[in-house]
Amino acid sequence: MAQTDVPDVVIGRLPIYLQTLKQLQASGQEFTSSKQLGQKLGIGSAQIRKDLAHFGEFGKQGMGYEVNYLQQQIAQILHADRDWSVALVGIGDLGQAISHYSGFAHKGFHIEVIFDNDPQKIGQNYNGKVIQDFNSIYQILPTQNIKIAIMAVPSTSAQEVAEKLIVAGIRAILNYAPISLTLPSYVKVQSMDPLSHLQQMSYYLDPLT
Amino acid sequence: MAQTDVPDVVIGRLPIYLQTLKQLQASGQEFTSSKQLGQKLGIGSAQIRKDLAHFGEFGKQGMGYEVNYLQQQIAQILHADRDWSVALVGIGDLGQAISHYSGFAHKGFHIEVIFDNDPQKIGQNYNGKVIQDFNSIYQILPTQNIKIAIMAVPSTSAQEVAEKLIVAGIRAILNYAPISLTLPSYVKVQSMDPLSHLQQMSYYLDPLT
Repeated sequence: MAQTDVPDVVIGRLPIYLQTLKQLQASGQEFTSSKQLGQKLGIGSAQIRKDLAHFGEFGKQGMGYEVNYLQQQIAQILHADRDWSVALVGIGDLGQAISHYSGFAHKGFHIEVIFDNDPQKIGQNYNGKVIQDFNSIYQILPTQNIKIAIMAVPSTSAQEVAEKLIVAGIRAILNYAPISLTLPSYVKVQSMDPLSHLQQMSYYLDPLT
Repeated sequence: MAQTDVPDVVIGRLPIYLQTLKQLQASGQEFTSSKQLGQKLGIGSAQIRKDLAHFGEFGKQGMGYEVNYLQQQIAQILHADRDWSVALVGIGDLGQAISHYSGFAHKGFHIEVIFDNDPQKIGQNYNGKVIQDFNSIYQILPTQNIKIAIMAVPSTSAQEVAEKLIVAGIRAILNYAPISLTLPSYVKVQSMDPLSHLQQMSYYLDPLT
């Protein structure tokens, strides 16, 4: 069960730990330490120990962390050890790239249904799926018990689309539109915002060179 | 000039403040408060005041923040008030979606050159740009004084591509490959990682429903 008292920022670091542990495992390493993880991730080792301590005692005295075990534990905590059905909303350029990206299914997030509102696209077959009319979400999403949506829609319609998705039972939205959505806290929203990332880096670049 | 003593997490929030201020401005609002910004963003108002205090005193006694002024100041701090040339590396599905996305240029990040290593693509015209051979980055990037790259390449080649980009003078990388890169700290890296976002949300979903 999710421990609701763990800060969101800690939850936010767990997928990164998981990814790094998988890389270590792929390279054949059996044990690691908070120091090694910290160096790989640019995070202090004390922070890593503190983050993990929210969920239990995973280290072995004098041995550090067993890579495979810690990876399994974190996957379980994140519910990343099971499969999730996902709805993709918007099948423009970006939606198409998303639907082609094998990484989602590989990590257990399966795009089971694709929606669009373009009459030219509705009913077409895309990547093995028939594109559904967005107006039919209230019929389709609850029936399939889909809780997660990936939104690749224009910024101008993102807020409205998100609200309808929530009415249709969606509780987690990965938003690709560069806009911050105003939604109730019982819905989790994560925004893919390349511009924020770029601006965060341009801060460090000398504009005079 | 960038204040190097400001924590990265604070810099990370500035683009979100900037975006929210632009939305407020677009809706015609002249003044705002840390309380309103906080409510819109799910961040405590004290945190917002503390973040902004790193860079100066932006509020007016009893008036809060002037939306337009604060937006200009934050844009200036982030170097988001000028144009940057950007290299796009990889022109598969995702690279194509990125190159079509008008938001980048709209916010001052102009994709000036596109690289790929596919002989079928090199020399082709895409979106008004001739796709360049990735092997020519050492000739092209320093000449054009490009410091920012967007990488839309497979995970398996991401580390190698990043290293070559740094040799070619790149100092900020927006990485779309779902892998964490190990690079020196003088290079800024931000990863677009939809899977981390999804896993961060699935934590909160009840796997039994």
